[in-house]
Amino acid sequence: MTSSTVDTCKFNDLQVDIEKNMPQDVRSQWILNAPEPPSPWHVAADSVRKTVSNFRDKVSSLNHRSCGTVLLSALQVVFPILVWGRSYTAAKFRKDFLAGLTIASLCIPQSIGYATLANLAPQYGLYTSVVPPLIYAVMGTSREIAIGPVAVVSLLLSSMVQKLVDPFTDPVGYTKLIFLATLFAGIFQTSFGLFRLGFLVDFLSHAAIVGFVAGAAIVIGLQQLKGLFGITHFTTKTDIISVLKAVWEAFHNPWNPHNFILGGSFLVFILTTRFLGKRKKNLFWLASIAPLVSIIISTLAVYLTRADKNGVKIVKHVKAGLNPISINQLDFNSPHVVDVAKIGLVVAVVALTESVAVGRSFASIKGYQLDGNKEMMSIGFTNIIGSLTSCYVATGSFSRTAVNYAAGCESLISNIVMAITVMISLQFLTNLLYYTPIAIIASVILSALPGLIDITEAYKIWKVDKLDFLACIGAFFGVLFASVEIGLLVAVVISFTKILLISIRPSTETLGKLPGTDLFCDVDQYPMAIQIPGVIIIRMKSALLCFANANFVKERIMKWVTHEESEDNKGNSKSAIQLVILETSNLVNIDTSGIASLEELYKSLSSQGKQLAIVNPRWQVIHKLKVSKFVDKIGGRVYLTVEEAIVAGCKSNQF
Amino acid sequence: MTSSTVDTCKFNDLQVDIEKNMPQDVRSQWILNAPEPPSPWHVAADSVRKTVSNFRDKVSSLNHRSCGTVLLSALQVVFPILVWGRSYTAAKFRKDFLAGLTIASLCIPQSIGYATLANLAPQYGLYTSVVPPLIYAVMGTSREIAIGPVAVVSLLLSSMVQKLVDPFTDPVGYTKLIFLATLFAGIFQTSFGLFRLGFLVDFLSHAAIVGFVAGAAIVIGLQQLKGLFGITHFTTKTDIISVLKAVWEAFHNPWNPHNFILGGSFLVFILTTRFLGKRKKNLFWLASIAPLVSIIISTLAVYLTRADKNGVKIVKHVKAGLNPISINQLDFNSPHVVDVAKIGLVVAVVALTESVAVGRSFASIKGYQLDGNKEMMSIGFTNIIGSLTSCYVATGSFSRTAVNYAAGCESLISNIVMAITVMISLQFLTNLLYYTPIAIIASVILSALPGLIDITEAYKIWKVDKLDFLACIGAFFGVLFASVEIGLLVAVVISFTKILLISIRPSTETLGKLPGTDLFCDVDQYPMAIQIPGVIIIRMKSALLCFANANFVKERIMKWVTHEESEDNKGNSKSAIQLVILETSNLVNIDTSGIASLEELYKSLSSQGKQLAIVNPRWQVIHKLKVSKFVDKIGGRVYLTVEEAIVAGCKSNQF
Repeated sequence: MTSSTVDTCKFNDLQVDIEKNMPQDVRSQWILNAPEPPSPWHVAADSVRKTVSNFRDKVSSLNHRSCGTVLLSALQVVFPILVWGRSYTAAKFRKDFLAGLTIASLCIPQSIGYATLANLAPQYGLYTSVVPPLIYAVMGTSREIAIGPVAVVSLLLSSMVQKLVDPFTDPVGYTKLIFLATLFAGIFQTSFGLFRLGFLVDFLSHAAIVGFVAGAAIVIGLQQLKGLFGITHFTTKTDIISVLKAVWEAFHNPWNPHNFILGGSFLVFILTTRFLGKRKKNLFWLASIAPLVSIIISTLAVYLTRADKNGVKIVKHVKAGLNPISINQLDFNSPHVVDVAKIGLVVAVVALTESVAVGRSFASIKGYQLDGNKEMMSIGFTNIIGSLTSCYVATGSFSRTAVNYAAGCESLISNIVMAITVMISLQFLTNLLYYTPIAIIASVILSALPGLIDITEAYKIWKVDKLDFLACIGAFFGVLFASVEIGLLVAVVISFTKILLISIRPSTETLGKLPGTDLFCDVDQYPMAIQIPGVIIIRMKSALLCFANANFVKERIMKWVTHEESEDNKGNSKSAIQLVILETSNLVNIDTSGIASLEELYKSLSSQGKQLAIVNPRWQVIHKLKVSKFVDKIGGRVYLTVEEAIVAGCKSNQF
Repeated sequence: MTSSTVDTCKFNDLQVDIEKNMPQDVRSQWILNAPEPPSPWHVAADSVRKTVSNFRDKVSSLNHRSCGTVLLSALQVVFPILVWGRSYTAAKFRKDFLAGLTIASLCIPQSIGYATLANLAPQYGLYTSVVPPLIYAVMGTSREIAIGPVAVVSLLLSSMVQKLVDPFTDPVGYTKLIFLATLFAGIFQTSFGLFRLGFLVDFLSHAAIVGFVAGAAIVIGLQQLKGLFGITHFTTKTDIISVLKAVWEAFHNPWNPHNFILGGSFLVFILTTRFLGKRKKNLFWLASIAPLVSIIISTLAVYLTRADKNGVKIVKHVKAGLNPISINQLDFNSPHVVDVAKIGLVVAVVALTESVAVGRSFASIKGYQLDGNKEMMSIGFTNIIGSLTSCYVATGSFSRTAVNYAAGCESLISNIVMAITVMISLQFLTNLLYYTPIAIIASVILSALPGLIDITEAYKIWKVDKLDFLACIGAFFGVLFASVEIGLLVAVVISFTKILLISIRPSTETLGKLPGTDLFCDVDQYPMAIQIPGVIIIRMKSALLCFANANFVKERIMKWVTHEESEDNKGNSKSAIQLVILETSNLVNIDTSGIASLEELYKSLSSQGKQLAIVNPRWQVIHKLKVSKFVDKIGGRVYLTVEEAIVAGCKSNQF
């Protein structure tokens, strides 16, 4: 220990200081006669009462208005577009129109690719880019989010649903289950919003999301190798080992390099434009339309050279026409309905996590607040309607939202523009997609992946918090080597184990007085802090003294007291510990096991002739110590500050 | 809010006060230039290094001694009897001898009853009272514990093993599995001790144990109804509804009241002597030998009247002779071996919980420390040897330990006396047990149960901690209405949910200045605390700002800031919040999500023209805030005390 010790006589001066200000008795009474803290029932009842009275206030304020006004304000809550739409101008529309066209040009190839990733026919990706953006545009509270199919959710959905029904032998049954999962996801998301369960989204920590998304990006990239190399027989598994094995095996069969040459060269083109767009702001447009340009050029090239006859794989038939109604495809009598509901729950949480994270980050850039619960309801309702109109799970896409923001969108109208553009494509342009090479779709998706692997952020997490990094890397390797669900599970388990570990094995610290102040701080953190001979001041690093840590903490304190004495015996002059002060200012709560172990601590210390004092107990703690008569047992030695405890100890002990 | 507010001008005086003591810059440097806290690897490596160097110290200190001394001190660690046995005197032996005979007289009927509860033949209960006490006597560190079969473990074991093999159709296979479970329990217990996993025992909170034991006592009592009423067909389930139904059905068949009259009258006799023994200390002996006296009298009575011919159920044949070796009965090729291992784990934890709780409570009465890890190894080794010598799981019995203590035992020699007494009975007296009525065994067990239902303690738990009471009552009803395992599970789940809930949904509090001091405390706890206009000081009631609560806390703080302003607008003179102070003194750690939400909080406050200051961050927290550059972002506004933060805010803002 580096901190020095001062003479005790200094602390006799303290007494004068304190008594000058206020008689100590009065201040002990402040602690002991604090008003009773609210009981758990009280807290729960209070929260219900507040919600009810809030609602009542709203209703009564409505009573004074006409029926039409009431209806209008209710509609305005559900459809925020009715509020912001009134101040919408032509100038804003010009910006939104351009942004909408830009994200549409990115959205069409991505939708086709993500549908393939979800093992669905290409048109389902396009459908999901029509209805959900329209619904969200009238209900959402974000201004930048671009709604539609996203890569991680597509991968997660297919990897879980294909365990129930094989998408290649029974595509119809598979698609039905996907719609059912979408409906469940929507219902879960809506109820999260209704019942204010927004915190469920927080269960995936920031670090876990970074690792999970990076792992998923690599897995998605690996899945694109199928398209990029034009491989016919591919694995349905998503882990890196199975996929690389499948690619390796494909190379041992005769394979056609045309696909790779075509896909690879356009991938280089898209990445180059992206690089240029980042370097020079005025070239941003180039990067945005590069995917669409690639598709047009390559489709034309294949059509003119008939390269599909030479082994270049093409999209072929995309069903024309707008979203068909899929309400009759929702089969609640399916034997898998319970499993699908579980899948819906997982997908709901992951989709919301992505959307809320995206929404929040852009809202904080523009400086407005996003209402998490309203967002969840909007996304949930979007997916419910989506499941009835042949869409699969839609959410806020990170890549398209970033493009939307960069393209200067002003409101959700850009989503409407995008949806109408996709609608027109679906109605009139599907025939043009016939000759689009699959390798180009793969290139478009691959080009979006590097943005998902955030090595800088991972390095920052490593620097700041090693345990967080463990959750990050756990999620990453879980996704990469096992499966998407295992990756998620690993991340959640590591994160919660961390919380529990800190609660169960809290460390303790000794405090010393900071020179020139009245503050007592950790002697390890502040090496200049002064320890007082004969007194040991202990604070535990936990908010709870409970069954899971009480005994551990008690034994630790006893060991510390013994150790301090033996160390002092060796080195300096012999000074037995006479007073043990427990600084409980950061102890929020205590339970009966905690009180029992404090009693045992008191007995053990008493049998060695040492005193125990409690300093600055919090509301719940002092209340429980009073009720359980512990305060009486230790002779009322409860003080507001460490100094008072030392002075009182000096008085009674004359050491 | 009841607290009043004072004029800001008072706080200009503060500045002088602080600067008199120490320039503020220096003190900010103390925080910012604290030594780097140890990383998790460092902490782990340090703990390993300490263990190794401890071991090396021990070894090197041994090197200076002869080989014989080394062996002796190793033996003394394993067998504490070698230490305390050397100062053992004849006077102590006299006390131990009497205590040993007393617990033997209680142990014989209890062992037979508990064996029946475990669905085993009576002799196995007696075997378990021979070998385990002998092993524990030479290895244990407690001085009062009486080892042998106990009610809760017997019930738990039978209720879990009978799901694998039916004890009535295949008693041999059932007994084999019981031995195997005992072996596994012993191995688990030994390894808990070896790997210092003593904290596993703490996972059952005090409150949960109170509820669980009370529930188990009622379930055990219900099981005795079979013996008390002489019912032939009984249920194998343990929940209250099944058992009462079985009893109800038995009454509808013709039944013999002799069993009940015999058992009931002796139960009244035993309870009366117990009552008298509690009232008058010199009648304690009467209570202790009452069970044995009841058995002798009732056995004689049945033998003389041949009441067994009239429907009185008797024990009948008890196999004579000492414990047979059961090593050949341990079948590791059983298809149930994995299930049995799981049962062993559960039983190991429950048995240790009972034993350690009993040992600790008596050790703290006599004022010595119990080494939890050594205790676990001793009990574990006891059970391993037990499983090889026809014993089932033994542990410290609460009722017999209390009698042992009350009878004046001095050391574990009383256990040896007890074991020898049971041994003699097994060898020579089993024939005498032939006519013992089963109803009397039931009475002896029933008479021990009221002590297990601790209503006073349950009421105390209710008064002190409502959530703890929930765990208590959950365990109670779980055992009563579902099963013993469900009861345990409910208790553990409720207890851990409580810890997680407090970490995930922490509340926040506003602080005010206590008059006449420099302390800032919760304004709810201290209504006399003074709040400063234009400043809001917030402290969160959690030790962690992490992914699971960061967003919740951030939104809460923002809501609070907005709410404070609007409230002030209505009532007093308008005073917008200009400075938000986060008092982080009880924040032990923070993760990357926590830092991210602090950054969002700072952005939101900045966009409203408000300042953010951090006060008294702990070691890990300030380190991470520095590494993540958050300190730079908020312009270095980190202070040691709230006053300094306010003064600095005043200076820069002139409000």
